[in-house]
Amino acid sequence: MKSATQLDREDALAALRQAYDLPEDQCYLDGNSLGVLSHAVKDALRRVVDTEWGQSLVGGWNTHEWIDMPVRVGDRLGSILGASPGETLCCDSLSINLFKGLAAALELKAPRTKILTEASHFPTDNYIAEGLARLLGPDRCQVIAVPLDELPHMDLSDVAIISLAHVDFRTGACRDMAGITALAHDAGALIMWDLAHSAGVIETTLNAHNVDMAVGCTYKFLNGGPGAPGFLYVAKRHQEVSSPLPGWMGHADLFAFESSYRPAQGIRRFLAGTHSVISMAAVEAALSIFDQVSVVSLREKSLALSDYFLACLEAHPITATLDCLTPLVHAARGSQISLSMPMGYPVSQALIAQGVIVDFREPDIVRFGFSPLYNSFSEVHVAVRQLADILESGCYREARYRHRNKVT
Amino acid sequence: MKSATQLDREDALAALRQAYDLPEDQCYLDGNSLGVLSHAVKDALRRVVDTEWGQSLVGGWNTHEWIDMPVRVGDRLGSILGASPGETLCCDSLSINLFKGLAAALELKAPRTKILTEASHFPTDNYIAEGLARLLGPDRCQVIAVPLDELPHMDLSDVAIISLAHVDFRTGACRDMAGITALAHDAGALIMWDLAHSAGVIETTLNAHNVDMAVGCTYKFLNGGPGAPGFLYVAKRHQEVSSPLPGWMGHADLFAFESSYRPAQGIRRFLAGTHSVISMAAVEAALSIFDQVSVVSLREKSLALSDYFLACLEAHPITATLDCLTPLVHAARGSQISLSMPMGYPVSQALIAQGVIVDFREPDIVRFGFSPLYNSFSEVHVAVRQLADILESGCYREARYRHRNKVT
Repeated sequence: MKSATQLDREDALAALRQAYDLPEDQCYLDGNSLGVLSHAVKDALRRVVDTEWGQSLVGGWNTHEWIDMPVRVGDRLGSILGASPGETLCCDSLSINLFKGLAAALELKAPRTKILTEASHFPTDNYIAEGLARLLGPDRCQVIAVPLDELPHMDLSDVAIISLAHVDFRTGACRDMAGITALAHDAGALIMWDLAHSAGVIETTLNAHNVDMAVGCTYKFLNGGPGAPGFLYVAKRHQEVSSPLPGWMGHADLFAFESSYRPAQGIRRFLAGTHSVISMAAVEAALSIFDQVSVVSLREKSLALSDYFLACLEAHPITATLDCLTPLVHAARGSQISLSMPMGYPVSQALIAQGVIVDFREPDIVRFGFSPLYNSFSEVHVAVRQLADILESGCYREARYRHRNKVT
Repeated sequence: MKSATQLDREDALAALRQAYDLPEDQCYLDGNSLGVLSHAVKDALRRVVDTEWGQSLVGGWNTHEWIDMPVRVGDRLGSILGASPGETLCCDSLSINLFKGLAAALELKAPRTKILTEASHFPTDNYIAEGLARLLGPDRCQVIAVPLDELPHMDLSDVAIISLAHVDFRTGACRDMAGITALAHDAGALIMWDLAHSAGVIETTLNAHNVDMAVGCTYKFLNGGPGAPGFLYVAKRHQEVSSPLPGWMGHADLFAFESSYRPAQGIRRFLAGTHSVISMAAVEAALSIFDQVSVVSLREKSLALSDYFLACLEAHPITATLDCLTPLVHAARGSQISLSMPMGYPVSQALIAQGVIVDFREPDIVRFGFSPLYNSFSEVHVAVRQLADILESGCYREARYRHRNKVT
């Protein structure tokens, strides 16, 4: 096995790490939860706040083209996700965008009334679907949540849309976007992919796979900042539908202040209220790194990092026997490795105390995220060594590691 | 009439202007559209970006209490608006929050099905109401938009909620919150006030007037930054209702990642997706000025500024005859003066070219906004003198002033 040092030396993307302002003495393996700050974002925020807002004030909507940000940043995202221009918006949160898409899907596929989701979907996705069903009433919408492996055996004849995570946030399993999308289409249903845990790190060829809709956030592998805006992709062929949240930013002529709503043509009709210019500027700057690197190269490095992580686990007797929830097959692996261990919470806290930043998910999962834009093989090596030390020493049993944080 | 210099000398709030980073050589009278940057906001953004996000990374959700921001900033807003703690959230946009409130009102007042709005309401408010009605279908929701003066003569027996602007964005008229709220309650309906053009500059004693719901934005007189988050107030007595957008942030135990939605107790259940920490930090810092000044004092200065503006208009023959749309009675006047003039658009552009920043609203309205936190009487004086000069010289007829900006 090559050494971490050698792998880092051979890593064609290693220099990208210089674009980020990383805290010293940390192995940050939680970019799947919150990405890091880049110099470009820091500079952009200075500019948009001090110069654009501070000096241009209301004139900034024209002078600095703030008004077009959701579409402009959306198109930049679209180019990363395999969408055509005019199919992606950066706006609102993932939850709100999902609501727009699901409601639109019921209109597109009427009289079908079912939203099919996976039982282990990221909670907000199913909560929002349930909220829509509750609002519309049982005659107009029902949510069916099933284990993903039952999908091929289901009767999908009344399903309007299938709503799934591209990468499962607990296990890190990456789903077969092409195959499942085709399965939905064969049954006359639409597909909605949640790309929160894949955008920017796994190729998502939305157009090539005929994906109907997708949502995601920009604060994980895209490094847009804590709580940065979400995105919504709606394939061109579906853009004649209504938005259930038709705010003024989605009007055909917003500054005419017309009394009745006339939807804008294209993806813009899915805008609702005024977007945060400051947050959006951070996302725009964060995406500039993709001028230098392709998602294909990032995916390749991500898999190399997780392969190396798995190899390191094998090298220590105490970590070799840990239960890995993440599929070993490359095509089915996201950009994280999830280890199931009974003492997962205190182990995660002991790792964090040692500067190895990971996170914990109920009931017993420790997640190690790999962000190929800035993570190195040496960090992976350190993380596994620390994990082995913690398990061997049993220090994770100390009371201080058991105290639950509000956010874990 | 006292001179502007003397009025400025006597202004007890004059020193507050030092808190803001205002461009030189401008009279900025557009704080009713976009507020200005304060040193506090600039500093807070540096801190939250460089130190909190940059150094604490995902740990910031605990260490810097990002997770509680919507409630914490909401309570700070609530204290300004006359709400009790636990009744206000800062989150999403005004449009999204209005959707939540209107849908909740239909549930609270079932079997009533009507949303009554004013025909001249800010567009997004009526678009969102129409969107909700379209989603629910005509049996469950209808939107009735009427001129405000017809309200006392309407049959309100099937009205679930009356949705109105506290201050009309076109005319600057301020509505009788106490009287209209009582009228709604007498008819068994709820009231929803849009405080976009009054929050932070006119007392809104929400609890004292038994207001049921309110929404607003934080980027006008509250100076939270372009597109800063909106807010939602729901009186305690109505907080058992469902949110139509039940995202994970509104769950009773969000990090339990439960498969079914259990709403949080209280106002928190109206949260949807993850909030932008950076935008929220700007709002929080912007509100810190209210530690030093009361809305009562701000309202007093705002009226003094607009009184002085009207007196200055009287002083020039060419401005004395302009048509003022804003009520002269103090109680009915917002924090702006709207002048109707046939050449309103080019006049507004000529004023902007002279450094007097105002805005234009269709069909012929020039709006002069007064933000008592930073505007001076001298600025008002300069603005009217420039207006008189422009009208006298006829320079506004030049072609360059007729070119329409995307955002006007």
